[in-house]
Amino acid sequence: MELLKGKEVADAITETTRGRAGALKENGILPTLAIVRAGENPSDLSYERGAEKRAEKAGIRVCKYIYEETVSEEELISGIKKLNEDASIHGILIFRPLPKDIDDEAIRRALAPEKDIDGITDGSLGGIFTGSHRGFAPCTARACMEILAHYGIDLAGKKTAVLGRSLVIGKPAAMMAMEQNATVTVCHSKTGEEKMKAICRESDILIAAMGRAAMIDESYIRDGQVVLDVGINVNEEGKLCGDVDADSAAAAGFLTPVPGGVGAVTTAVLMQQTAEAAERQTGK
Amino acid sequence: MELLKGKEVADAITETTRGRAGALKENGILPTLAIVRAGENPSDLSYERGAEKRAEKAGIRVCKYIYEETVSEEELISGIKKLNEDASIHGILIFRPLPKDIDDEAIRRALAPEKDIDGITDGSLGGIFTGSHRGFAPCTARACMEILAHYGIDLAGKKTAVLGRSLVIGKPAAMMAMEQNATVTVCHSKTGEEKMKAICRESDILIAAMGRAAMIDESYIRDGQVVLDVGINVNEEGKLCGDVDADSAAAAGFLTPVPGGVGAVTTAVLMQQTAEAAERQTGK
Repeated sequence: MELLKGKEVADAITETTRGRAGALKENGILPTLAIVRAGENPSDLSYERGAEKRAEKAGIRVCKYIYEETVSEEELISGIKKLNEDASIHGILIFRPLPKDIDDEAIRRALAPEKDIDGITDGSLGGIFTGSHRGFAPCTARACMEILAHYGIDLAGKKTAVLGRSLVIGKPAAMMAMEQNATVTVCHSKTGEEKMKAICRESDILIAAMGRAAMIDESYIRDGQVVLDVGINVNEEGKLCGDVDADSAAAAGFLTPVPGGVGAVTTAVLMQQTAEAAERQTGK
Repeated sequence: MELLKGKEVADAITETTRGRAGALKENGILPTLAIVRAGENPSDLSYERGAEKRAEKAGIRVCKYIYEETVSEEELISGIKKLNEDASIHGILIFRPLPKDIDDEAIRRALAPEKDIDGITDGSLGGIFTGSHRGFAPCTARACMEILAHYGIDLAGKKTAVLGRSLVIGKPAAMMAMEQNATVTVCHSKTGEEKMKAICRESDILIAAMGRAAMIDESYIRDGQVVLDVGINVNEEGKLCGDVDADSAAAAGFLTPVPGGVGAVTTAVLMQQTAEAAERQTGK
């Protein structure tokens, strides 16, 4: 079994993004990502540090807009609207889940799809569904596609099982795989274990995004299969692990490790989409 | 094999719609559908006649806005925008394909999603993808779901194969079936015949929307299966036929006939969605 490591995919994307950022700078445009965070959630802080490092490598400027955890919905929305209108900001990343008194939908509605480089608005998601690509894909879903593309795994005609139907990964990944001519089946909590196993074993490509630690064992896997593990879970021993139990997935042909797989590519996609947003907004 | 006839589904929907229209009228609101047509395409005219008859039964008023086939894009867009703003119009149906010099996307962009009772705008389609249901479903896709609901066929946990990935039927029907907890596989022209046959035979429910006359024969069907035939094709003998070859689908448990199946339900859904649009717009 070969590991599909995220690092080399992220590095390749970043190199290309650096070139695009350089071209923008020659035209007087500094591609800029705004990070909006409310509170000090440790996992937000950790992702933020990773994003800042990645931004530096990619030649993208990062501006941080940090609010107290007690920020009002009104203040947050007003802040986002200012960023929408600020021509020096090209992409906006909002850390979610937001503090519990804030209505997630109201925040998503406030964000301009043109700057929605993590694909959370209805405009972005609708664009993925219709193929108009008006906004941007959720970074994790696009990271899956970038990994397949980088390692030369063609989706056309392939049976692809997507486990999970969230708007962050399952549904957009299904649409993106379908756009590349895969034959996609979306499984979810109501599919039933035995059916899900059979569907997975019949698939050429498996995208696991159920969010259940190590649920995918050998009974889901067939020889030579390509398995993308999107899960980021903490197991009973307090260790980071994916949805796939790596030891029992030895039969798979290819597997993204956790950590170091899909997750390692998301910040690179974030910068790629910020550069793309800057290009679209400035026409450069 | 039992035929799932569209007429009784359409009649049941229409009766409910008539009740909703009556309640709106008691509140001084006359639920109104605007039909926008450019030219005299015979199939448009035939659908229009059916829609007008259905509207009468449902208690919905129809206003027709007929343009010459030579109408300019500008004039058509200006007409649609007037209808968007006209509070006495609740739903707008635009016959497509439009005359060839008119940009379909520009027309779809001009239409207000709130009045888009045939689900052609990005707003409507995005709402189906995200589950926000901001606009409306394409009538044919919703007709499929109404038929299943009427005949008491529960989708939860069922393997459902959708053949075709258009925005008119395949993709929205897949999302709607998934929302009802079906495990959905979308097949299309790049799936390959043998794979498609195997996927179809393994499915509990089959929604055929490939637009190929009588392509579904016994090799796609398994005993007891529910088959919805969305195709409306003309065969070599000039006869109307579906995507399913009805004679060789005898093993299926249930089949929608063509004509008299899904197609017979679409105008009823159109009126249902017009009433719903009127309710949403007026808060009555």
